[in-house]
Amino acid sequence: MAYGLLKGKRGIISGALDENSIAWKVALRAKEEGASFTLTNAPLAMRMGEINKLAEHCEAKIIPADATSIEDLEKLYTGSMEELGGKIDFVLHSIGMSTNIRKGKEYGDLNYEWFLKSIDVSALSFHKMLQVAEKLDAIENKGSLVALSYIAAQRSFPDYTDMAQAKAMLESIARSYGYRYGKKNGTRVNTVSQSPTKTTAGTGISGFNAFYEYANQMSPLGNASADECADYVITLFSDLTRKVTMQNLFHDGGFCSVGISEEIVARMEG
Amino acid sequence: MAYGLLKGKRGIISGALDENSIAWKVALRAKEEGASFTLTNAPLAMRMGEINKLAEHCEAKIIPADATSIEDLEKLYTGSMEELGGKIDFVLHSIGMSTNIRKGKEYGDLNYEWFLKSIDVSALSFHKMLQVAEKLDAIENKGSLVALSYIAAQRSFPDYTDMAQAKAMLESIARSYGYRYGKKNGTRVNTVSQSPTKTTAGTGISGFNAFYEYANQMSPLGNASADECADYVITLFSDLTRKVTMQNLFHDGGFCSVGISEEIVARMEG
Amino acid sequence: MAYGLLKGKRGIISGALDENSIAWKVALRAKEEGASFTLTNAPLAMRMGEINKLAEHCEAKIIPADATSIEDLEKLYTGSMEELGGKIDFVLHSIGMSTNIRKGKEYGDLNYEWFLKSIDVSALSFHKMLQVAEKLDAIENKGSLVALSYIAAQRSFPDYTDMAQAKAMLESIARSYGYRYGKKNGTRVNTVSQSPTKTTAGTGISGFNAFYEYANQMSPLGNASADECADYVITLFSDLTRKVTMQNLFHDGGFCSVGISEEIVARMEG
Amino acid sequence: MAYGLLKGKRGIISGALDENSIAWKVALRAKEEGASFTLTNAPLAMRMGEINKLAEHCEAKIIPADATSIEDLEKLYTGSMEELGGKIDFVLHSIGMSTNIRKGKEYGDLNYEWFLKSIDVSALSFHKMLQVAEKLDAIENKGSLVALSYIAAQRSFPDYTDMAQAKAMLESIARSYGYRYGKKNGTRVNTVSQSPTKTTAGTGISGFNAFYEYANQMSPLGNASADECADYVITLFSDLTRKVTMQNLFHDGGFCSVGISEEIVARMEG
Repeated sequence: MAYGLLKGKRGIISGALDENSIAWKVALRAKEEGASFTLTNAPLAMRMGEINKLAEHCEAKIIPADATSIEDLEKLYTGSMEELGGKIDFVLHSIGMSTNIRKGKEYGDLNYEWFLKSIDVSALSFHKMLQVAEKLDAIENKGSLVALSYIAAQRSFPDYTDMAQAKAMLESIARSYGYRYGKKNGTRVNTVSQSPTKTTAGTGISGFNAFYEYANQMSPLGNASADECADYVITLFSDLTRKVTMQNLFHDGGFCSVGISEEIVARMEG
Repeated sequence: MAYGLLKGKRGIISGALDENSIAWKVALRAKEEGASFTLTNAPLAMRMGEINKLAEHCEAKIIPADATSIEDLEKLYTGSMEELGGKIDFVLHSIGMSTNIRKGKEYGDLNYEWFLKSIDVSALSFHKMLQVAEKLDAIENKGSLVALSYIAAQRSFPDYTDMAQAKAMLESIARSYGYRYGKKNGTRVNTVSQSPTKTTAGTGISGFNAFYEYANQMSPLGNASADECADYVITLFSDLTRKVTMQNLFHDGGFCSVGISEEIVARMEG
Repeated sequence: MAYGLLKGKRGIISGALDENSIAWKVALRAKEEGASFTLTNAPLAMRMGEINKLAEHCEAKIIPADATSIEDLEKLYTGSMEELGGKIDFVLHSIGMSTNIRKGKEYGDLNYEWFLKSIDVSALSFHKMLQVAEKLDAIENKGSLVALSYIAAQRSFPDYTDMAQAKAMLESIARSYGYRYGKKNGTRVNTVSQSPTKTTAGTGISGFNAFYEYANQMSPLGNASADECADYVITLFSDLTRKVTMQNLFHDGGFCSVGISEEIVARMEG
Repeated sequence: MAYGLLKGKRGIISGALDENSIAWKVALRAKEEGASFTLTNAPLAMRMGEINKLAEHCEAKIIPADATSIEDLEKLYTGSMEELGGKIDFVLHSIGMSTNIRKGKEYGDLNYEWFLKSIDVSALSFHKMLQVAEKLDAIENKGSLVALSYIAAQRSFPDYTDMAQAKAMLESIARSYGYRYGKKNGTRVNTVSQSPTKTTAGTGISGFNAFYEYANQMSPLGNASADECADYVITLFSDLTRKVTMQNLFHDGGFCSVGISEEIVARMEG
């Protein structure tokens, strides 16, 4: 169902790898809601992905960009503004990568170069997207930026290792830059803390199935899907949430507010 | 601007006293978005208010109810379902009253009968609205209830006295009942923690102007208005936020995430 | 091991029912640390308990008081000051009772008279202890009050029903009155959010064993015991924590900051 | 006043630059409480500081270490264990540095090499101290590590720039490693979020005086001093807090729980 919530809005959506990606779903929904936008991803990720299909479907130009590169981000904004015919109303940051997780390093045996790389790619890239945008004056008044986060920013998950720190930092950037961009031109900056989601990235984490099931059984509404996340992100890009900023918003079926659920009680007793 | 976000939905909106009320604005926006609903208020509040105008404008039936009375709440739900032709999709709880505040009692000199009355009217009434609804099976699957709260639930404000406790309890009820109703039929329960708002109720609190101005200067986007709050509440009643539950959502222009603002720095230095 | 942390301090300790009570352990430790204090409990609770043994051991006078009665609380403070020879340095609030829990009422079928009684006994009593103290000027400069809370104030636990709201309100009172009493004479007011504890009160809650075990397996240090809680409370009564106020302090072996533990992962996979 | 709280304990204290440093005060208090410990600081910081006086007073060996260097940290632990005659019971992390702040860079004009350096020095160093310790099995059972943080981790402060992210990450490391080290041998890991403090580091931040005064006027107990912070840290190193872990503990005179104070109301009205 479409409502025209983003009619006439211009956006940039990063991180659509394949049809399981939250970013992919956001792109589909943003299109339905009337937005025009560009798609971006790291050159490497794009080679693995199927982003061309999405771009065709959405009539969206793809502008590859390494989100840690200032130069690439400058091209992303200038290219997007040129393509879309004006300043940008909304941006989705859906970028995360940890070599420590990929290589199965334990939290007590992390490689620190990779740690800083995780931080640079998964968190600092959000600051860069904001700072580059501000320097180019690329965000329309009352714009909206959303980055995807995870509750590992608040609580420990054994296998999430350095991504926990990356997400904590990502949410902190939303607060700090949300203050600054809000003062500048009313732009809001938020993070959405999403349920564990069966994306290609998510399922790469060891123990994913266990904590997916656990979260599902803890949450009274069950885990939020990628589709539902896209719906929620659309509300944050729309004009109906113009005073929501500097927040980390849980989109998790209630998970973060549950101490114990009846299912887990039963499992403990079983 | 209207999007049809609540097309076909049935609701109950409490607390519309006059055109400054947040509930009043929610009613106007809900109407625009395609909902049909009933209006309710305490019989006493209604005599003082101008709710008839609103009812006419929204083609909404008024069903007076003392929100502390189980019997009245039963009539409210059965009357609303009859009037609207089905179960209820959304409910707004916008009810608060403190005799201790009205009478200017300090926090170290509270009257305890009035304290319990504040709790009963401002917080327990939300549990009653939920319990009565559940017993009557009055909420449609995937329904949405929202109660209006204030950051005094988390931080101390000298003149807010026992309403701080009422709001803390209100938010706690949203978590507890949100779990229960979520399990039952997917219904979500949230509170919105709104900026200080120049409603008839708000301005009755001593020192209101000072903390209104303070909040306004602390928040990078300024205080959220009643109109903007109505927009936000609409998103929470819509189908786009189906996995958001048991949350207290700040709608405050960024206030709660600001340590100090440049304006307040200047004022401290001035 | 004793350090003399409370040497010369005068206190009031409520809620010591039997030797499993946290309050009982706090009394023993306070004695060891050099404090003198009075013990108090509801007249009814005292009849069931073995508080006389404790009083003898601690050379402490017992002053029965219904914590919802202003008159009783006045007698408690004046009697304590007379007995101990001066104003009171520390107070432990360890009082909670829910008839809804006792009678096994579900959260969707609560009795509202009992609900308000739960609130009055378990939360409002803390405000009364503070307000009565302030009116009698009974707390020494830089005094310390601690109330025992539980994480159900932040997250839902199916069987904790109206006590969740009572604890949320209790913590809110600590913030509101902590502000006021801090300004007045430097007194601090905090709550300690303790692991589920095998006290006579705790084990009365249905499903207690399941969530005790769950918490134990989630917490890297395991659940905190009543003895350990007493140690912690002693630090909060001591002069070493004079700038800690208006806080809810988790004493839970890490529970509140754990998303999922390896034990629960194993259980989900098993 | 001394209690013998750390009698027989062995520690490592970093970050004592001069007598205004919190770490300096912690060292003095730890000595009084019966601990033996080594002192450490970056070689460069030591040249500027007066750490020799402190070392003499405390009969403590100085082991210079760049906290970003694994090799230096290894020497620090092995040297400390050799010097003190056994495994380490407590560690203070009091390390922070931002070139962006020093050079007065605005948050919208940050240098990213410096940003990553801030992160490495101020946050990642804590992980390194933990990982190196674990690999060397250098922490005694039920040990305690404390890192000093600031509320900029939760709320925006215009001039704190990239240190806000560093502190958010520091607190996240405490949660993640607190889980791991707790499971391993009962060691706890916490951060203390301290009032703005007139240390040499603190006063280097632009606008420091304004937010120092603001915090002082917001906090019912006023800002916590370095001496008071040292007292509090001692309790966290002692055996009385053995089940407190993975927490960020506010030591701030109540600041974080105040919405507005009477002083700020007066200032807004004035």
